Amino acid sequence: MHMSSIKVAVAGASGYAGGEVLRLLLGHPGVQIGAVTAGANAGESLGSLQPHLVPLADRILEETTTEVLAGHDVVFLALPHGQSAQYAAELGDDVVIIDCGADYRLTDAAVWEKFYGTPHAGSWPYGLPELPGNRAALTGARRIAVPGCYPTVSSLALAPAIAAGLADPGDLVVVAASGTSGAGKAAKTHLLGSEVMGSVSAYGVGGVHRHGPEIVQNLSRLTDEVVRVSFTPLLVPMPRGILATCTAPVVDGTTLDDLRAAYEKAYAEEPFVHLLPAGQWPATKAVHGSNSVHLQVALDEAAQRVVVIGAVDNLAKGTAGAAVQCMNLALGLPEATGLSTVGVAP
Amino acid sequence: MHMSSIKVAVAGASGYAGGEVLRLLLGHPGVQIGAVTAGANAGESLGSLQPHLVPLADRILEETTTEVLAGHDVVFLALPHGQSAQYAAELGDDVVIIDCGADYRLTDAAVWEKFYGTPHAGSWPYGLPELPGNRAALTGARRIAVPGCYPTVSSLALAPAIAAGLADPGDLVVVAASGTSGAGKAAKTHLLGSEVMGSVSAYGVGGVHRHGPEIVQNLSRLTDEVVRVSFTPLLVPMPRGILATCTAPVVDGTTLDDLRAAYEKAYAEEPFVHLLPAGQWPATKAVHGSNSVHLQVALDEAAQRVVVIGAVDNLAKGTAGAAVQCMNLALGLPEATGLSTVGVAP
Amino acid sequence: MHMSSIKVAVAGASGYAGGEVLRLLLGHPGVQIGAVTAGANAGESLGSLQPHLVPLADRILEETTTEVLAGHDVVFLALPHGQSAQYAAELGDDVVIIDCGADYRLTDAAVWEKFYGTPHAGSWPYGLPELPGNRAALTGARRIAVPGCYPTVSSLALAPAIAAGLADPGDLVVVAASGTSGAGKAAKTHLLGSEVMGSVSAYGVGGVHRHGPEIVQNLSRLTDEVVRVSFTPLLVPMPRGILATCTAPVVDGTTLDDLRAAYEKAYAEEPFVHLLPAGQWPATKAVHGSNSVHLQVALDEAAQRVVVIGAVDNLAKGTAGAAVQCMNLALGLPEATGLSTVGVAP
Amino acid sequence: MHMSSIKVAVAGASGYAGGEVLRLLLGHPGVQIGAVTAGANAGESLGSLQPHLVPLADRILEETTTEVLAGHDVVFLALPHGQSAQYAAELGDDVVIIDCGADYRLTDAAVWEKFYGTPHAGSWPYGLPELPGNRAALTGARRIAVPGCYPTVSSLALAPAIAAGLADPGDLVVVAASGTSGAGKAAKTHLLGSEVMGSVSAYGVGGVHRHGPEIVQNLSRLTDEVVRVSFTPLLVPMPRGILATCTAPVVDGTTLDDLRAAYEKAYAEEPFVHLLPAGQWPATKAVHGSNSVHLQVALDEAAQRVVVIGAVDNLAKGTAGAAVQCMNLALGLPEATGLSTVGVAP
Repeated sequence: MHMSSIKVAVAGASGYAGGEVLRLLLGHPGVQIGAVTAGANAGESLGSLQPHLVPLADRILEETTTEVLAGHDVVFLALPHGQSAQYAAELGDDVVIIDCGADYRLTDAAVWEKFYGTPHAGSWPYGLPELPGNRAALTGARRIAVPGCYPTVSSLALAPAIAAGLADPGDLVVVAASGTSGAGKAAKTHLLGSEVMGSVSAYGVGGVHRHGPEIVQNLSRLTDEVVRVSFTPLLVPMPRGILATCTAPVVDGTTLDDLRAAYEKAYAEEPFVHLLPAGQWPATKAVHGSNSVHLQVALDEAAQRVVVIGAVDNLAKGTAGAAVQCMNLALGLPEATGLSTVGVAP
Repeated sequence: MHMSSIKVAVAGASGYAGGEVLRLLLGHPGVQIGAVTAGANAGESLGSLQPHLVPLADRILEETTTEVLAGHDVVFLALPHGQSAQYAAELGDDVVIIDCGADYRLTDAAVWEKFYGTPHAGSWPYGLPELPGNRAALTGARRIAVPGCYPTVSSLALAPAIAAGLADPGDLVVVAASGTSGAGKAAKTHLLGSEVMGSVSAYGVGGVHRHGPEIVQNLSRLTDEVVRVSFTPLLVPMPRGILATCTAPVVDGTTLDDLRAAYEKAYAEEPFVHLLPAGQWPATKAVHGSNSVHLQVALDEAAQRVVVIGAVDNLAKGTAGAAVQCMNLALGLPEATGLSTVGVAP
Repeated sequence: MHMSSIKVAVAGASGYAGGEVLRLLLGHPGVQIGAVTAGANAGESLGSLQPHLVPLADRILEETTTEVLAGHDVVFLALPHGQSAQYAAELGDDVVIIDCGADYRLTDAAVWEKFYGTPHAGSWPYGLPELPGNRAALTGARRIAVPGCYPTVSSLALAPAIAAGLADPGDLVVVAASGTSGAGKAAKTHLLGSEVMGSVSAYGVGGVHRHGPEIVQNLSRLTDEVVRVSFTPLLVPMPRGILATCTAPVVDGTTLDDLRAAYEKAYAEEPFVHLLPAGQWPATKAVHGSNSVHLQVALDEAAQRVVVIGAVDNLAKGTAGAAVQCMNLALGLPEATGLSTVGVAP
Repeated sequence: MHMSSIKVAVAGASGYAGGEVLRLLLGHPGVQIGAVTAGANAGESLGSLQPHLVPLADRILEETTTEVLAGHDVVFLALPHGQSAQYAAELGDDVVIIDCGADYRLTDAAVWEKFYGTPHAGSWPYGLPELPGNRAALTGARRIAVPGCYPTVSSLALAPAIAAGLADPGDLVVVAASGTSGAGKAAKTHLLGSEVMGSVSAYGVGGVHRHGPEIVQNLSRLTDEVVRVSFTPLLVPMPRGILATCTAPVVDGTTLDDLRAAYEKAYAEEPFVHLLPAGQWPATKAVHGSNSVHLQVALDEAAQRVVVIGAVDNLAKGTAGAAVQCMNLALGLPEATGLSTVGVAP
């Protein structure tokens, strides 16, 4: 496919994920933005809802329908869970569909049904190319499930230690602090600025958050051992970004050098995953708006645990950046096209 | 001692801890505020440095010296580590000294020296009355070490499960997100608003933070087993508050009801520690400016861990509120005098 | 009336203004909190909606009705505009009604109707005792209209210069930056944390905000000249606080000393209005949670304008603090009972 | 000059302005980044100081000297005031020097000396191409003074009304709320996150801020009348962005349609200045990281003033974006090369 001829539609363009997909596509050299659609906001201008997308300000949001989405090379779905199957069925196999929602992330129907409470739609190639085996499945794919934001950073933070056999996957603890955009743009009292500014809170505690099994699924591919994770998400007062603190029992005799070597090796060829120099700790600000993941690893000898800190922009690499990265893979474009490792800071 | 006759001095009144001690003392019915002292800011007005303390705006900060601090019934030390021993020695045994710094918190000299790098000054009664045994030691005490902010909330969050034998203390994981005032008022680039707003970062990772051994010390008093904790502090974009996520392997057969019962029993008579109703999760905003600790407990059966979330105001109950609470105990006043359970929200 | 016998009801207790009234009443030595009511949230516990009000956590919100509100000495109304008249009519003249809403603030029916679009209910004594003439009208009153948050700080900031004839009231410009709680607790997309954090915006620009005519009304009482104000409110990323920048053309020959003298004289006896020392500028943080107003005045000789900066907590002195202050006046209690000049900072 | 051959140096690369210049240059298709220099931070890695600039992480900051800066086609100076003259003199006339500092902004030596207190260095073409006459002077220039951040947005907000004779320039009032990065990266207590979060404050009040005369200078070029401005800057709790509220007495008979027409005409051909649709108000979030200026205009008939709200990213279009835009003009490149109108939101 010639690069300048990629015609793209974005369904759910009034929300945060859809808006971020559009933001990144505006910087992609080969993309032509076609239909932009919404549900309740159909008929409104994109400028009134996403005023930062200046070149698209005059675009009017269309109703999300198969007819509107048809005729594009790539369709990004940034919809509430449960709506993707219909479009996948109706749009035909030639269209690349990249689902920013959860519908096709989990492979195990029982796990899906336990955590989402609806029938399992199936699973698509999982859009985290940096995990072993994934990139090949994504290359040329016509259906892609973009990972959840927490699983992206948590899996990348823990994978090298587990894959290298340096950490015990049976008692992982992940505490991940997220900016509020991860909770979406629907108006809810507990997400009001007055509520979230000056406050940190926990939610989805005790193994009930839907991203927990996704982390288990990712890491289980790397080991024959049982993977268990205690996952706690926190809501912190910032719009974007996730900082994940990921710990695992360390295998006896493992040194910090062993750990650093495993991470360096795992991500040496990855354009977007950066192990920081020793002594420097990730901060979400440094990845703001970028497709980068910043990692750092420590060994707590007294606690006999490895601690890995990972930072990601939940909307960029955590959602829309991964989606564009996957589009590039699906279309055979250079994987980093239109994506940046450079954050907007301070 | 008659309540209206308590003459109090605050050393380190230009900083955050000292300012908060003064704020609380202004609401204490029996206290007369005497000397307020500082180091580099001596000679300046309190109003220029702590403009929220309106009734003390015209007070001029004196140099911190034994002479200035002498002649008070109670002296609060809110000084950098290492300065308390001198005043303790020179002020005499009649004066109640309440040290908001770390100098007298740890009982084990080797641990102190490992984490602080200076000779051990000794240990004083530990100002966390809600832990078993502590209240009696604080009542009538003339020297009190105020706990660190992270150990306060982390210890209170984990103590009931460990004391009741419901959790294994050998593999605790604590990830605690703190507002920036915990890092003090000294001007440092990484604490600038431009750096911290919109960002979460980790620091002191891998078992090197000084509050780790303090948590171990507190919990070791409750069990014969070895206590190990992986402690990771996070810096989050808010001025005040700590939210601690504390997890422990659960002992086989433990139910959520068992856990809730243990917490309810442990804190039933405590005026400042509140187990929230099931389904409600702590947020730091709710304890802003108050002496309250909000707790909630969950059981993650898949991960086989208990997860306890605790919220505290690092400057209030986490430092200055505990200090005033301890003063009340030292002087035989009702323990909650001048302290409030009510937060300033939103 | 004996102080410990004041029975108080709060209507609208699930919102920000109602919650703040309750917070302050919990610190008032003579008040007994009776009914707490709500609309849509009736039947829920106060603890689930206002978790910072620990002593009231188990209270169940009742439906707001005249029957529920009857039988109290004082009723605070923190309701949407347009609901006060009914309760005022039905509750009887013995009950002190303090309306935190706008219904009875404006004296001019035509102005009311222009800005609110509904019939004028009338006007009650205006709860800003620091303006000339108001305190007498409030003392012993049975009906009180609590001022708007912007008019409180803007009027106090401009009144002395205008009353002293040092500034021309015909071309006032007020730009006031408010925290988000001023916009209430109803869930709206533009008030989400994701929208407001990291952003400043303007709203109600060009003379359409309802607080504009209230400022004009207040200042018109101080001068025979026509008062005109260009008022622009800003929404800034913090939960509480207003900083108002208020400018007026200076009358020829006026010096900064004249101005400072006017402000010092105007507020010399006021417990809650503080002219800061020369060189120190107000910050909203210093008044957080308090009933204080901080002012500073400058003379811009090149622009021939006086500039007054005022800081207030929009929920405290800007709403609920004023309401409690007025209750004290209505009941003949010392005006500052239960109120503090001390902010919660940092 | 062939685009891919532009060799650029950045002096002051450890600060916020220098970091932003580098961020933008990393997205500029023709630039090769040469020397990056600093003062006290010389010898450190850029990655440790600007971790968001991933592609430059391994660069070591050199000492800022003429020798280091020599040999580049373009030198950006992001230095403290007073240091530019030396490099301008020593680097030679072939080098394009773009000064992000103030040294060459003001044309009037007396005004410079009054506000800066040092001898006047002179003036260079003023890097705000959107004001009448400026673009021609910048095209092909070898020395360019980048405007101050406040004057950029304030001048653009007021210029059309004044140039069209619709507003009286003799009594302008500008209140501009800025994020903290405008105050730089030097560690100062009043800029700590603990101080700025949750607070708005004013500074430089009463005609003493250095950007006041720069606004006067810009607007004076558009009218024969005397320009007077009351300028008040506010510090608000966000890292980036300025929202300026700019008001002027309206000339009798002017309608809102007249005003909108003047703004539409003035900026119809400008790629970076956007008059928003009626009813939509600027927010700084929408321009975060972009080179856009968002404007909206209102007419307050009662106050007889026009009110213009302008939003800009103080570091991007307010400093570094303007600098890159000016580089493009200086080199004869398309003016928008490497710059984006798209903000990073939410």
